[in-house]
Amino acid sequence: MNTAFKSQVRAMAASMGFPEAVYVTRPNLPPLDDVMNTLKPAWDRRWITNDGELHIRLETELAKRLGVPYLNLFCNGTVALLTALKVLNLEEGAVITTPFTFPATVSVLYWCGLRPVYCDIQPDGYNLDPAGIEALIGPDTKAILPVHVYGIPCDVAAIKDIADRHGLPVIYDAAHAFGVRLRGESVLVHGDLSMLSFHATKVFTTAEGGALATGNPELHQRARVLKNFGITGEESVVAPGLNGKMNEMQAALGLAQLDGLDANTEKRRRLDGIYRRLLQHEPGLALLDMPRDVDPNYAYFPVRVQEALFGLNRDTLYETLKAFNIQCRKYFYPLCSSHPWCSAKTGTLPRAEAAADEVLCLPMYGQLPEAWAEKIGTIIKSLGSLARI
Amino acid sequence: MNTAFKSQVRAMAASMGFPEAVYVTRPNLPPLDDVMNTLKPAWDRRWITNDGELHIRLETELAKRLGVPYLNLFCNGTVALLTALKVLNLEEGAVITTPFTFPATVSVLYWCGLRPVYCDIQPDGYNLDPAGIEALIGPDTKAILPVHVYGIPCDVAAIKDIADRHGLPVIYDAAHAFGVRLRGESVLVHGDLSMLSFHATKVFTTAEGGALATGNPELHQRARVLKNFGITGEESVVAPGLNGKMNEMQAALGLAQLDGLDANTEKRRRLDGIYRRLLQHEPGLALLDMPRDVDPNYAYFPVRVQEALFGLNRDTLYETLKAFNIQCRKYFYPLCSSHPWCSAKTGTLPRAEAAADEVLCLPMYGQLPEAWAEKIGTIIKSLGSLARI
Repeated sequence: MNTAFKSQVRAMAASMGFPEAVYVTRPNLPPLDDVMNTLKPAWDRRWITNDGELHIRLETELAKRLGVPYLNLFCNGTVALLTALKVLNLEEGAVITTPFTFPATVSVLYWCGLRPVYCDIQPDGYNLDPAGIEALIGPDTKAILPVHVYGIPCDVAAIKDIADRHGLPVIYDAAHAFGVRLRGESVLVHGDLSMLSFHATKVFTTAEGGALATGNPELHQRARVLKNFGITGEESVVAPGLNGKMNEMQAALGLAQLDGLDANTEKRRRLDGIYRRLLQHEPGLALLDMPRDVDPNYAYFPVRVQEALFGLNRDTLYETLKAFNIQCRKYFYPLCSSHPWCSAKTGTLPRAEAAADEVLCLPMYGQLPEAWAEKIGTIIKSLGSLARI
Repeated sequence: MNTAFKSQVRAMAASMGFPEAVYVTRPNLPPLDDVMNTLKPAWDRRWITNDGELHIRLETELAKRLGVPYLNLFCNGTVALLTALKVLNLEEGAVITTPFTFPATVSVLYWCGLRPVYCDIQPDGYNLDPAGIEALIGPDTKAILPVHVYGIPCDVAAIKDIADRHGLPVIYDAAHAFGVRLRGESVLVHGDLSMLSFHATKVFTTAEGGALATGNPELHQRARVLKNFGITGEESVVAPGLNGKMNEMQAALGLAQLDGLDANTEKRRRLDGIYRRLLQHEPGLALLDMPRDVDPNYAYFPVRVQEALFGLNRDTLYETLKAFNIQCRKYFYPLCSSHPWCSAKTGTLPRAEAAADEVLCLPMYGQLPEAWAEKIGTIIKSLGSLARI
């Protein structure tokens, strides 16, 4: 950027910048007193983990709310995903997945002796492209691991069709997809298992936390056993298990949050609307398509920055917004396939590479004041105008 | 047991039985208000995981209190132990360990592509016998994984000598050994890494939780990176990592508990004394030897039951005590080596097998009323007398 632009930005930031950091997300926390009141009975019982009453209640409530037959709570989503691989007895071989995801999706493969085979993303979206899967299936392919990126459902029908024809299990990384519905039913009913994350950055949080959802009672039962050391009775341990348990403090936070979830989604919807109104006709900015058959959760607000039209590239916009105290995130840059330890040889991934270079996620959380979203959108518009002069 | 004994037990239980279950342990919980007051600043900051301020404080406080140079907190002890194996790059091959332990010690080996080679326990204790290790070392031996069973330190000098001569790393499963000192220094300074558990059943608890302690700054740093997805910077992921993070709710529980820890240990010490006074001269009962150079944590009160002298075998005593509402635990029965999925071919393990058949852990936790310990000891004595008539 030239010197004139820089000095104009400095002047703008002095007048329009936020006095303190605006984070890309903040956890949706109920009042601490509510958490405490929920936790108190567990404290009085002195039963603070190991399938406590709050844990049981949260599992039941979430399965009902999300519309899935079976749900296992976990200490975090990564351990849930690792356990899912073990539930399906996946050891050695290749798993077809997307490079456009958080590193955990791919890391857990290595922790299981598996390796990723990367499939590019859709031409018109950010999810794994079903049209690319079949060419990647080989004799040692063990499973397909797509990600519902930004909570937008994958092409589940096409993926199921391929998986069925090749006899491959499908595990969905649904870390972003809490509460998302596709054609009126939970997105979690697709695939053999779906992993949810309840990390502090997610729309529903238990500080750390996660879950495995499934429609298959046998997989559900196996997940339950594996997350508790393989124990099935006081003197019976049937498999090498892990500790994947969620404790009662996490469960209390989850329970205390349920009543406010719909209101939180509504706030996010309004913020999403504000950003869209301001940015949708901005040259060089492409917003996330919300398919008509999806009830979204408004978890993220990704913006695709095309330098030639907008006037700034994504990285410059990201850095420039920092001068306004606006902390965006480059979800997902770098691509998983670009880390040396997980650069499986799968040729080029042009669409994923472009997305990794161009996407910026704007601040999005229920407590973000609408005026702040207005201001963030306005600042971005102004920066584009300024850059295009 | 004959009918007369059974009817006498019924009569005794009717008069001496506890009105409600006496568990083998209960968590040492500070008042919930203390936890809340500790947690409040994190709530106000809306920062509830990812190296929060409480997490940092707890790591610092525990390292100081325990007397170890470096400590990493984890979501639980099992994930900590799994991470320790990855910190040392252990993949494929054999690890020499003890069958007399909780299944997690051995499970994590399988989750890393390793397999256990079992070494018998000491003739005069419950820990892995150094005299048995060397014969088990083969070309694919990768490490030694001893357990400080019941918090009694292993023969760390002998193990170090063998490990050094063979160039093998040593990971201690110190799940039971919080606060234990050997010859005036922390037992955690031995080995390359030590794993602690803060599960609700342990002397210090964060509901679920654990830690890796080490004296080696490089191993410490690698553990820190691996437990956070391998992330070293906003755009740098250097290895396949996992999520092993402890959250701020767990850290708050830990912090709120620190002031009361010494008093809790003192209560345990008194209960230990009561049991010893009552049971030490009882025929057929052998109590845990407390080595003179150890400052113990009184985490467990294991009793070894020799049927020929006591009059009842361990299993009958265990079942009979249930009639009094006394819930003991057979730590560790069955042996890990007896589960079909981890029965490595290592010949017989006569001492571990005898221990697994004969040990019973009595109720032991700070809030156990001394009168209850008196009564439990008295009931056990009476049952022995009755059985020997």
